[in-house]
Amino acid sequence: MRDLTTLAPDDLRSLKSQLEQEYAAFKAKGLSLNMARGKPSSEQLDLSMPLLDVLNSSSDLTTEDGIDCRNYGVSDGIPEAKRLMAAMLDDDPENVIVMGSSSLNVMYDAMARCLDFGTLGSKPWAQYDSIKWLCPSPGYDRHFGICQAFGIEMIPVTMTEDGPDMDEVERMVSLDDRVKGIWCVPKYSNPGGVTYSKEVVERLASMDTAANDFRIFWDNAYCVHHLFDEEENQDQLFDIAEACAQAGNPDRYFKFASTSKVTFPGAGISGFAASPENVAEAKKLMNPQIIGHDKINQLRHVRFLKDAQGIRDHMAKHAAILRPKFQTVADKLQDGLGDAGIASWNSPRGGYFVSFNAFPGTAKRVVSLAREAGVTMTGAGATWPYQEDPQDANIRIAPTLPPLDELSQALDVFVCCVKLAAVERLLEQ
Amino acid sequence: MRDLTTLAPDDLRSLKSQLEQEYAAFKAKGLSLNMARGKPSSEQLDLSMPLLDVLNSSSDLTTEDGIDCRNYGVSDGIPEAKRLMAAMLDDDPENVIVMGSSSLNVMYDAMARCLDFGTLGSKPWAQYDSIKWLCPSPGYDRHFGICQAFGIEMIPVTMTEDGPDMDEVERMVSLDDRVKGIWCVPKYSNPGGVTYSKEVVERLASMDTAANDFRIFWDNAYCVHHLFDEEENQDQLFDIAEACAQAGNPDRYFKFASTSKVTFPGAGISGFAASPENVAEAKKLMNPQIIGHDKINQLRHVRFLKDAQGIRDHMAKHAAILRPKFQTVADKLQDGLGDAGIASWNSPRGGYFVSFNAFPGTAKRVVSLAREAGVTMTGAGATWPYQEDPQDANIRIAPTLPPLDELSQALDVFVCCVKLAAVERLLEQ
Repeated sequence: MRDLTTLAPDDLRSLKSQLEQEYAAFKAKGLSLNMARGKPSSEQLDLSMPLLDVLNSSSDLTTEDGIDCRNYGVSDGIPEAKRLMAAMLDDDPENVIVMGSSSLNVMYDAMARCLDFGTLGSKPWAQYDSIKWLCPSPGYDRHFGICQAFGIEMIPVTMTEDGPDMDEVERMVSLDDRVKGIWCVPKYSNPGGVTYSKEVVERLASMDTAANDFRIFWDNAYCVHHLFDEEENQDQLFDIAEACAQAGNPDRYFKFASTSKVTFPGAGISGFAASPENVAEAKKLMNPQIIGHDKINQLRHVRFLKDAQGIRDHMAKHAAILRPKFQTVADKLQDGLGDAGIASWNSPRGGYFVSFNAFPGTAKRVVSLAREAGVTMTGAGATWPYQEDPQDANIRIAPTLPPLDELSQALDVFVCCVKLAAVERLLEQ
Repeated sequence: MRDLTTLAPDDLRSLKSQLEQEYAAFKAKGLSLNMARGKPSSEQLDLSMPLLDVLNSSSDLTTEDGIDCRNYGVSDGIPEAKRLMAAMLDDDPENVIVMGSSSLNVMYDAMARCLDFGTLGSKPWAQYDSIKWLCPSPGYDRHFGICQAFGIEMIPVTMTEDGPDMDEVERMVSLDDRVKGIWCVPKYSNPGGVTYSKEVVERLASMDTAANDFRIFWDNAYCVHHLFDEEENQDQLFDIAEACAQAGNPDRYFKFASTSKVTFPGAGISGFAASPENVAEAKKLMNPQIIGHDKINQLRHVRFLKDAQGIRDHMAKHAAILRPKFQTVADKLQDGLGDAGIASWNSPRGGYFVSFNAFPGTAKRVVSLAREAGVTMTGAGATWPYQEDPQDANIRIAPTLPPLDELSQALDVFVCCVKLAAVERLLEQ
């Protein structure tokens, strides 16, 4: 494959008609394939079926401190589940609140508490005319959706290979006390697969913020979601809690994690970790909202996953299923686009996505072409605040859900669409 | 037992010393008994242990419309769970959203949505300097806690044997568009055991409200919680949805219910029902908050409880355990206080509580005396907004949790405390 950007117009036109034929052939197949959603495959879900056996009608549903999980009570989680979630959250059990089956809900509620009540004595954020939020982009569309729901102004921040561009971040937070926080998926980020460097974590923890109630929403969604078993092939993340404590800003972060892509999405348990002051405040403010989350499901998860080693062993089984899928994405993109000079993508060592940058100005066209040929992708722009990708380039590839053969077919279609859209664009220029 | 209010001072003094001796004897026993909490007993929880067997690793976790309950999706509940909750909510499945394990959380969130976003186009309630809420009292302390958390001014409304005093309610709602709603536990109310009459339901539905976004928060927590199996001994509640529709105010109500006291408190499923417009708005506003509630637990509950008849059969087993406890309360109170002229109480046909009115001005003293003698009661005043019972009379008796013999002992202590506090008071007058 030659670099398409160096082709003469005649060569581009001939390539275009060739790609159009190829595209028509794909379209004629009447495919129905999906690379849109960050959902585990059936094969992955099967790994957790024994979760349904660990508790039955003969089980003792008493916690290690003697609480009957079948009745009301325990607002912050049973001790053994706190320990389990602490392992995921890289924190101490006493700093953890075990929550329900949706970490998105936990993040929404954490934001709502700050809006309604402020945090640690600060003015409720809803009492400002408007507040602003830093959104490293490309990022997770549902994070942006929470900001949008509450009318919080989103400011995109460039993502680098080490995390958000900290020069930008430091400038933004220093200027305006209405800049109240930042979304972070610090490990195997969605969609870039980036793990924040220690320097980025430390700069986030130590930067001077105009707002004294600035909060880092640290969504460690992929904390245990390595693609490789060998430690040297796994990303390591420096603990934000430790960094914040060292920097003298111990209350700056809220950590979130869940078992959604460990056991069953939407039917797992989640966790919140923060400084002792933040945890105490969250418990106090949650008291009128809920008596306690599902302790039986907490116990079920503890008895199934057991501990950090149990989680590692279980995630290695997921990784074995996911590795060939990510390898297929890498191979197909390299084969089809490696030397074409029109696209770039990442090769993550974990997480659920490949972030793909099409030829600028063509992402919407690529997704539309793919859809017409029966391949559903995440909407172009979804990875940016307000769905506005300034380059119209970024597309999130989600390879986990489809079986390997479908994924392979979908990528063939996708590569064709990427090239066709680029050639169309080059001919317009 | 003579009517204590007619005793001469000398007789009162001699009775007082007799009661003090009796009280001292109870105290010497070093009891530790609890009639405070509306929790089911272990024996009741045992009834639902088979819930843990209906799903195991061999189960098909596919819904009737082909959704895999193990993966993300389905924001409003699986069809079979909508049908089950519709049976509890006395509504159509299409008007139901199946929620998570806490109906308190569902009510808190419904309130938060109205505060943040208004409802059906109205001004967000948080944008008023203050809003007000009608609180039939005695009522449920956690309802009042939600108002208090959000700084909503609570207005107590007298409870009658047919529900809230509708003359009061109609006057309040007609005066001020900041009166935005009312808490209702319409069947076997907490704590009074009152089921609203058809007339009350219809007046609630049809009354003229100054606020066009007035909402009835209809917490049907005890909808299937009869104490007796024969239909003629069960209270019947007229459907608020039907009443509101007939009155031309179809959007006025939000219904809530849960399986918390059907299967396992805090580990069940809950439901929200409202008009199609309200349901559509709730779904839209919940979309940024959560992808979907725990579908596996929904499926588990459907396979265990099956349908309306399954719920009835299961609740009959609860009733068989609860009847002797409520009978013990009735007997002990009648024996100890029946002719004393200092107290009154109800004899509910369902629900979880007996509402007890001590001699005015003595409820706090009674609870304190009981506590010192090792019997924990719900705090006096808890059944009133701001914990302020104007009569200092109401005490909530929760007979479900303790075993029968402990309950019986606790009631002996309680009766003694009620009499002692009344005699003390009468001697002061």
